[in-house]
Parts: sequence; C-alpha cells; structure tokens
Amino acid sequence: MKRIGIGLLGLGNIGSGTYKVLEMNRSHIEQTTGLDLRILRILETDIERDRGFTVARGVFTQNAEEIFSDPEIDIVIELLGGIEPATSFMVSALKAGKNVVTANKAAVAENYELLTEAATASGVKFRFEASVGGGIPLIGAITEHLCANEFTELLGILNGTTNYILTKMDEDGRAYEDVLKEAQALGFAEADPTADVEGLDVANKLSILMSLVFGKRVRPEDIPTRGITDITKEDISEAASQGCVIKLLASAYRKEDGVECFVQPTWLNKEHPLADVKNEFNALFIKGNAVDDLMLYGKGAGPFPTASAVLGDVITIAKKL
Amino acid sequence: MKRIGIGLLGLGNIGSGTYKVLEMNRSHIEQTTGLDLRILRILETDIERDRGFTVARGVFTQNAEEIFSDPEIDIVIELLGGIEPATSFMVSALKAGKNVVTANKAAVAENYELLTEAATASGVKFRFEASVGGGIPLIGAITEHLCANEFTELLGILNGTTNYILTKMDEDGRAYEDVLKEAQALGFAEADPTADVEGLDVANKLSILMSLVFGKRVRPEDIPTRGITDITKEDISEAASQGCVIKLLASAYRKEDGVECFVQPTWLNKEHPLADVKNEFNALFIKGNAVDDLMLYGKGAGPFPTASAVLGDVITIAKKL
Repeated sequence: MKRIGIGLLGLGNIGSGTYKVLEMNRSHIEQTTGLDLRILRILETDIERDRGFTVARGVFTQNAEEIFSDPEIDIVIELLGGIEPATSFMVSALKAGKNVVTANKAAVAENYELLTEAATASGVKFRFEASVGGGIPLIGAITEHLCANEFTELLGILNGTTNYILTKMDEDGRAYEDVLKEAQALGFAEADPTADVEGLDVANKLSILMSLVFGKRVRPEDIPTRGITDITKEDISEAASQGCVIKLLASAYRKEDGVECFVQPTWLNKEHPLADVKNEFNALFIKGNAVDDLMLYGKGAGPFPTASAVLGDVITIAKKL
Repeated sequence: MKRIGIGLLGLGNIGSGTYKVLEMNRSHIEQTTGLDLRILRILETDIERDRGFTVARGVFTQNAEEIFSDPEIDIVIELLGGIEPATSFMVSALKAGKNVVTANKAAVAENYELLTEAATASGVKFRFEASVGGGIPLIGAITEHLCANEFTELLGILNGTTNYILTKMDEDGRAYEDVLKEAQALGFAEADPTADVEGLDVANKLSILMSLVFGKRVRPEDIPTRGITDITKEDISEAASQGCVIKLLASAYRKEDGVECFVQPTWLNKEHPLADVKNEFNALFIKGNAVDDLMLYGKGAGPFPTASAVLGDVITIAKKL
C-alpha cells in the first residue's frame, strides 16, 4: 500500500463532500489502486461546525504555510473557491513542490498561465478536472483520450442553476423571476445569483476549455457573455413553436481565421443531443475531426460529484508518485 | 520531439482509418504532445489495394515476428479483429516487451486475464479503449477519472447496427426484416448480421466492462444474452403507447449478493437519457456513488472514431515512454 499525504484547503460544502467520499470509498480505493490516501492537515477556521464526521483537532490549521512546508504532504487540494487567496495559496504550494488539485474555476480561468507555469517550473502536477462540469470527466477526456483529434466545435451546458431555471420555464410555462425564487428556496440558486444568471460562471468555464480544446488563451472577461435574465416565457414559447428549446450555451467554433467563442442563450433544435439535458444536469457536446460528435453528460455541481472529480485527479497524480 | 516506433497489425478499414487520422493530425499531435509517431512496419497481405494513401513497400511484412523483434518498435497496434491469430500475436508482442493497443473486443473479452497478465508480467502497457464504445472515451473515464467511485448500475447502448434498426422501426413503423435489409444495403449491417443482431457483440463489450466497472470477470458466453431478431413493430408500438422505446441494452446492477448482468431488448422510459440515443450512436449510462448519473455518448464504430480511441491509447502510452 502506497501512503499519500494530502493537505486540504477548505472544509466547506465541497471540502466536506470530498472528505466524506474518501471515507465512504476508502476500502474500494485501496483495493483497486493500492493507494492509502490520508488527509493530514486541513486549512479551516470553522472548527466547531457539525459536518457529520469528526476530524481530530490537531489536523486543523489556520496557517497554510504549515501545510506547504510539511514533508509528509504530497498533494494539496484547494477547495476554498474565489480567486484570492486561493491563487496565492496554490502558487505557494506548487513552488514548495506540492502537486495541486483544485475545483476552483474562477482562479483557474483568471490565472491559468500563472498556475500551469508554476507547476511546470516545479516539475509537479496541477489538475483541475472538477473546475468545469463538476463530476463529468470532460477535461480528462479532452486532454488525454481524445488528444489525437483536432476539435472544430464545442457547445456546453455548464451551469446547473440556469439550466434548472430554463427547464422549469419551458416545462411549466412560468416566468423567470418566479422560477428563480423557487430555485433559491430549494437551494438550486444562490441568494445573490448574479454569477450564474449573468453567465459569468459559464464564461470562466469556457475560458478554461478554450485553453484545453483549442490551445487558445481567452480571459473570461474577454468572452462576449449574455445571461438569461431577460429571457421571457414568451421567448420560450416562441422557440418551442419552432421545435426548439432555449439553453444557456458556452459555444466555440474553429473558423478559418481562428476560434470564435461566446456565452449566450441559444435556440437549440429539439433533435440536438443537448436539448434533452434538463434541470441541474450539465453536458459538453464536442466535435472532433476523428471522433465526430461526442457528448459527456452528468452532474456539474454538488459536493459528491465534485468530490468524484477531485479524487480522480488525486488518484491520477498519486499513482505516478 | 520524442520519436515513437509503431508496428501495425492489419491495414483493413480500421487500420487504414488509423493511418489516415495519424497523417491528417500529425502536426497537431506533434505540437500538442511533442510526439513523433511513426508507423514503421505493417503486417498485411493485401499490399496492392488502393486505400487512398501510399505506403512504402518495405513497410509491409507477412511475418509478425519481424515486428515483435524490431528494437525500433515501442508500441504494437492490433487491428486484425477476431480472436485468433490476434490474441496470439498480442501475447507474443507483450512477451517481447512491446506495449499493445487494440480495438478487438472479441479477443479482449475472451482472453482478458491472459492479455492483462502478459502485460503485467512484461511491465508494459495493454490498452483497449476502442474495444468498447468506439470513439467514446468510456474505459479511460471509468478506470481513471471516475476511479474514486463505487458503481452501482450500468446501462449501455453498445451496438450501432441494432440501435439503427430499432430506431428506424420506431420512427418509420417498419418491420425488422425490412429495416435490416436497408441497413445492409447502406453498409450499416454486415451481410451476416448474426454477431450484431443476436447481441453477441454487446455481450463481448459488457464482459469487458464488467471487469473494469465491477472488478468481476464474466466470460461473454456466461452473460444471458438475447438479441433483437424477434422484436416486432407491434412490440415497438406497444412500448410507445406506454411512453417507452425499446433499446438493446447491456445492463449490470450491483445487488447485495453480487453483480447481475445481461444483454436484452429493454423497455426504456422516453425520459431516460439513453432513450434519445438514436441511429448508429452508442452511449454508456453509469451511476457511481459519488458522481451519480453520468452518460457518455458518441460514435461506437467506424474507422475514424475508432482511430481516435486507438491513437488516444497510443499517445497515453507514448507520453510515459
């Protein structure tokens, strides 16, 4: 059994989910991979909160440097969210020779070069599968198994909140504000839903995909982005009358003079595979010049699906240590 | 640039497709991976056939041992199909210290232990992404990115011929024999369609998935298997009247006392993500205890999609050489 030391930054919803999935599937992971994954230190101020599991007091720290300088720690998992201090922490960890795994789309989209170059300079791995599409293994698929393809087109439903709202508007003929309130009550939308409904969350994810799929760095703020706040139930009925649904799509196309990309509500023919992606589900539809049409579908958020991707990255790195 | 020598067994449809995709995307692969992939030798008797590209005479051989003993060759790609001599060739290549990539579901399903153990014994890699689901990167997803999950359920549409026939029977209200003849005329079904329509091709694929998803070896002949030859258009209308479609499914469920699996035509509610997988498309629907519902959809056959998976395996191996 190969023992791998892990430092975890953040024990909020996603951090707790990752901790729980690791405990739940510990014996399965040990049997199938021969890896003994140990969370040795956790950066978290909220020590008292009841998370449904017990962490020894000595595991917690309020000093990230203690984690980066700990020789027992091989991999740092960053699950704080937000651009800072997450980016600075990841850069420090990478410079200290730690492999880093993150689910943080905002930090990766904003600081892609900084983070990937810090990893290269230190000869360590930096993986971020969970940052786009949650549990759907789309970054692995694109960068590894499909890497013999040149991609020509990408269409993604990459935000569960807006897809839930548009689905309910379509199925129940209800107004945007009405469904948004319900989604907030059910916990599918944040109290301040701006990042979701204005398309900013999707722009972050598309920015990351542009680097991986087309080798083109586009900062999120440079992606033309329109959200769903002005979509009316009349718009949706009109689309339906033409055999279409309205989806908030991340789109990118390879043209003769480069790659064009944008985020906007889009009419999609009901025959398109993405048209049936409903509620909180996410999906990426991609076209490669060898593989042709491909779609990857699943849960794009939530503690357990996100933990699936985070731990997949951890295990991929750990196998090679 | 790292130069990788490849020996190719078979230059039929899939072999030619792999050769073409490698040439078409050579500069893309070189730029993104730093790999110079060279097909140095090809085992093939039909040297004269016009395949739309030219191979130097000296590349061809009729003696597989010449390939296995060639120190310039790092990876052998087996695209002969059928159980023998493909299995013996792969075992010889593995024993000679060559990494092996194959698309051969029949050989992998029948001789899974023999092949994986030969690879382990020689300390080389044996990869077979293209053997299930063609271009869809499902083996990579399951064994790598989703490996932190315990899987509870698997449902697959894994044969394009039968899915095409069932789709046309459903959409056009036509009889099985009628659609089969059309599919044969269009090249979507073989002159002898037995392996497809009796479910044997799907049983091979399910056998491979059982090892990877549930860690359980089930030989294809031990999987209860029923094909689509007795499905009538009345069966399909009856299913439709209940809001269902009939699909030929590979199914596996984890139960308290083990894992159950079978291949059979199955009523599927039209709301299920697999219900919209039409014509020659394949898809795998899988449920993990962390990732929840996941679906991977794409082209399960054809020279280019298969080449995408074969070359994905080749590049994955080559990066580590």
